[in-house]
Formats: sequence, C-alpha cells, structure tokens
Amino acid sequence: MAEPIFNRLCLVGIGLIGSSIARVARKRGDLARTVVATARRPETLARVRELGIVDVVEDDPAKAVEGCDAVILCVPVGAYAGVMEQIAPHLAPGVVLSDVGSTKGSVVRDLLPLMPGEAHLVPAHPMAGTEYSGPDAGFAELFEGRYCILTPLPGTDPVAVEKVREFWRRCGSMIETLDPATHDKIVAVVSHLPHLIAFTICGTADDLAEETKEAVLKFAASGFRDFTRIAASDVDMWRDIFLNNREALLEMLARFSEDAHALGRAVRYGQAEFIEDRIRRGRKIRRELIERKQA
Amino acid sequence: MAEPIFNRLCLVGIGLIGSSIARVARKRGDLARTVVATARRPETLARVRELGIVDVVEDDPAKAVEGCDAVILCVPVGAYAGVMEQIAPHLAPGVVLSDVGSTKGSVVRDLLPLMPGEAHLVPAHPMAGTEYSGPDAGFAELFEGRYCILTPLPGTDPVAVEKVREFWRRCGSMIETLDPATHDKIVAVVSHLPHLIAFTICGTADDLAEETKEAVLKFAASGFRDFTRIAASDVDMWRDIFLNNREALLEMLARFSEDAHALGRAVRYGQAEFIEDRIRRGRKIRRELIERKQA
Repeated sequence: MAEPIFNRLCLVGIGLIGSSIARVARKRGDLARTVVATARRPETLARVRELGIVDVVEDDPAKAVEGCDAVILCVPVGAYAGVMEQIAPHLAPGVVLSDVGSTKGSVVRDLLPLMPGEAHLVPAHPMAGTEYSGPDAGFAELFEGRYCILTPLPGTDPVAVEKVREFWRRCGSMIETLDPATHDKIVAVVSHLPHLIAFTICGTADDLAEETKEAVLKFAASGFRDFTRIAASDVDMWRDIFLNNREALLEMLARFSEDAHALGRAVRYGQAEFIEDRIRRGRKIRRELIERKQA
Repeated sequence: MAEPIFNRLCLVGIGLIGSSIARVARKRGDLARTVVATARRPETLARVRELGIVDVVEDDPAKAVEGCDAVILCVPVGAYAGVMEQIAPHLAPGVVLSDVGSTKGSVVRDLLPLMPGEAHLVPAHPMAGTEYSGPDAGFAELFEGRYCILTPLPGTDPVAVEKVREFWRRCGSMIETLDPATHDKIVAVVSHLPHLIAFTICGTADDLAEETKEAVLKFAASGFRDFTRIAASDVDMWRDIFLNNREALLEMLARFSEDAHALGRAVRYGQAEFIEDRIRRGRKIRRELIERKQA
C-alpha cells in the first residue's frame, strides 16, 4: 500500500459524495490515516456512526477540523460561507482545504477571504453523482472513470495541488484543471441547464389539467421519462447550484431560449429545412460524443 | 397457432417500425398469411430482399396494396398524403388501413378524404422506438410491453378496430384508445417537446466558441449526455412529426417557455423558495412515474 496522502482528513458534510469518499478511504487505506466526519444534522451523524464508515464522528465542525491536514467541504455550495466562518479559526497551519461543489467561482468567492495565511485552497469538482442523496447512498466506486476538475488559483502551492490530484487519482478519477470561470460556463451547459430544463418540464406537466396529466404519466415515453430521471435530484444541492452559478446559467438559458424559440418559429411557419438542420446538429453532437466515448 | 388476423398485409415503408412488424409477423406466423413490403428507395427494398423478412417485395405501392386486406403505413407522417394518393384507387374493398405515426390529427386529416367507401381507417401509434432507423434496425421484441394507442373515429367498424387491437396485442403491446386531439396533446408533452428541447440544446452547445464546445463534449455529464441520446433521432421522421403536430407542440413549448423563464427569473433574483418548489415538483413527478412503474 502506498503512503497515505493525508494524516487526518475531515469531511464536512457526509451525504452521497462525502460518504463515497469515506468508503474509498476505508477500502483503500491510502487516502488518509484517520477520517473525521462532521455534519449539521444529528440524524446524519447518528447514521454515519451506525454505518461505521469513518474513524471519528464529531458534531462540532470547529473541533472536527482541528489537527487535520486536509479538510474537504461536502455540503451544498450555499452553505460554504457559513461553514467557513465556523471552521476558519480552527484550521491547522498548512492544511489543504478542498471541496466537491458543482460551482467554482462561488467557492473561491466564499472561501478565499477567510483562508488563514498558511492554508492552501484547492477547489475540486468530482463529476459524479446519482439521483440519491444521504450517507446511505454513497459507494466506493462512484468516482471511478469520472472526471474530477480542479480549479486552483494561480500561485497555489503546487505540492498542495498535487496532493489533491493524487487523492482523486486514487479515487479512480481522471483529473483536469480549469480556471473557475471556464469550469462554471461548461457545467452550466452540460449539467445545470439540463437540470433546469428537466425541473421545468416536470412542472409544466404537473400544471396540466388533471386528466391530461394522468395520461402524460401513463404514457411517459422516452424523452419525458429520461428528463424526470435527472429531475429527481436533491433540492438543497440544486437550489444552491442555481443560485451560485447564476450568471453562467442565465447566459446559457438565454441562448437556449433563443434557439428553442427559433425552432418553434420554424415549426409554426413550416420551415422544413431549418428544422432538418437543427435535428442534424443534434445527431452530429451525439456522434461526436460517441467518438469521444462519452456517450 | 391462432388463425392469422389478416390474409395479406402490406407494409408501406419498412424502416425501424415496419421491419419490426415484419419480424414479429415472421416469428409468430399469426399476424398475416402473407406480408408484402414496399418502400420509396430501391436500396431499402434491395436490403429487405437480402434480409428475407417479408414474403413479397414490391417497388410500386399501387401494386403492393392490391388484394391486401390490411395496409399499414410505416413512412414519416409527412409522406402520408402523397402515399395515399398513389394507393387509394388500388385498395381492396373492406381493407383495414392503419399506420404507426406519432401524430394522429394529421393522419385523419391526410387519409380520411381519400378513403374508399368500403375501407376502414384505424390509426395506431405504437409507442416504441430506438435511436436507430432503417430495415436493419428493427427487431421482433420492439413492441413488447409498450403502449399502442389507437385513435379510431366514432362510427368506425368495430370488427376492423378489434382486428387492429388484436394485431398489436400479438406484437406484445398494451392497447389504449384515445381521440386524435387528446393523443396529439399527450405525445406533445411526453415525446415531441422533449425532442425539440434535446435538438435545441445540442444546437446551443454546437454554437459555443470552439474551445468551450470541446470542453462541453469532453465533460458531457449526465443531463446533457441523456439529452443527446434522444437527439440522435431520424431527421425525416422528426421534421414530419413537428410539422404535423404543430399546434399541440407550440402550445406546450409556450407553456414550457413561460415556466423556464419564471425559473430563470427566480435564479436571477435569488428566490430560493420558488426554486425549491420547482425542484420538488420534479421529484414529485418522478415519484409518480415510479409508482406507475413507468420509470
């Protein structure tokens, strides 16, 4: 077994992602010698104790991070500022502070001002998840073969960055580095906008007259059914993502909206060629994904 | 083996759906004694001959339908009017004319005026498909466990309707009956609007600056990836569906659009409760689908 990357790792928040990290750490043994978990809700902590997936369960986040050389925030991104206020005074010198949030500009915005001088901020976004949440939903294989995007700021200690890289490598992920703004724009397209659309179309269906809605649920075909799958996501997590990637998301929604209206207009006026072009572009993107083995 | 439902069945068009019907007919033997296929493109007919999935391959649709007691249109819905002009004078007295199109108001509109007096129109929509097309893409199990919606007009000969019911039952489908307008509204929500959205978001991604687009393809996450899957559909078929379910589709697009803008506005102004409510409704619809075993 390789030398553990960290001596004492604290997971702040232990839902799907946090508990999956805990399970990888337990399975491999070379992520950290000791894993501490803390969470806001006593029920979560009680359940984590029952599951026995970490070494130490601690209800006070300030105490939880004490003496840790790595702290990973695994709470919804909207909770970062509040958590950071609680833990910042207790972070050990030289600590590597990372996270798993789906927005990165907001993470830098909320964490950087409170960072102690000797701490290293290395934001990370493991692109993995399921429609389930909570400590029971995690599993050690969640990150295997998935991208993990790091968004360290220029000038961050390269040793700290390399530790976080190696951490995710051992979780089975493929590591990429982006600046926070580019990251946020890309995830707005590949994940946040599709979720906004999925939530919306479910709401649109829910608003239909009862009889029609019943029939929609009965005949839910591929398409609608696939949309509902991603619409089953965690409420707090997605509210926070939307609010913390506001600009990129609204920009992409505006582009999408213009494009949807253009296609709607072509349908209205019977512009077959325009419609065919749009469908062909869908097929083209699909083909390109298949060529990249991302389909 | 049960008595075959029809003596001589003609499939006009033999792509994914037509060739799947042919394969069911061949496998079971009790759909029709003889299966005739015709198609517009000589390559398709040559391929069907090679595949050996029908008894007779005929390049002239007028000849193909002669002497048939059942004719099923399996071409894109936009081609119905043209096909009907060709075949109507050659339909046998008492023939059951059906189809497999995804729009039903347009089918009645295009076929009814040309129906010979002694023919029976029983429109059908098997809700089954894959992202592939052409006679090689079909398979005998395609319709198993899927809904098939019939939209006969009031006053249609019940014997003809029952034959079409039994036909799809033997294909493994669950049969439902709706009026054409209700059918069109429902499929606009469960299938046509999701496809319009999927084509659109692919186009939106395709329009991004090259560098961002590359990253989008690279990191295509669940959500975007799922959308591209349904965007890989057949161009002619979907152009025709959009143009032939214009009103219901535009009505649903307008509702969806309003809802998407309302959610976008809530993101802009940080209205957390509104956002949470939308996400919860997505989860609720998902749960209702799961309860109905449609997920």
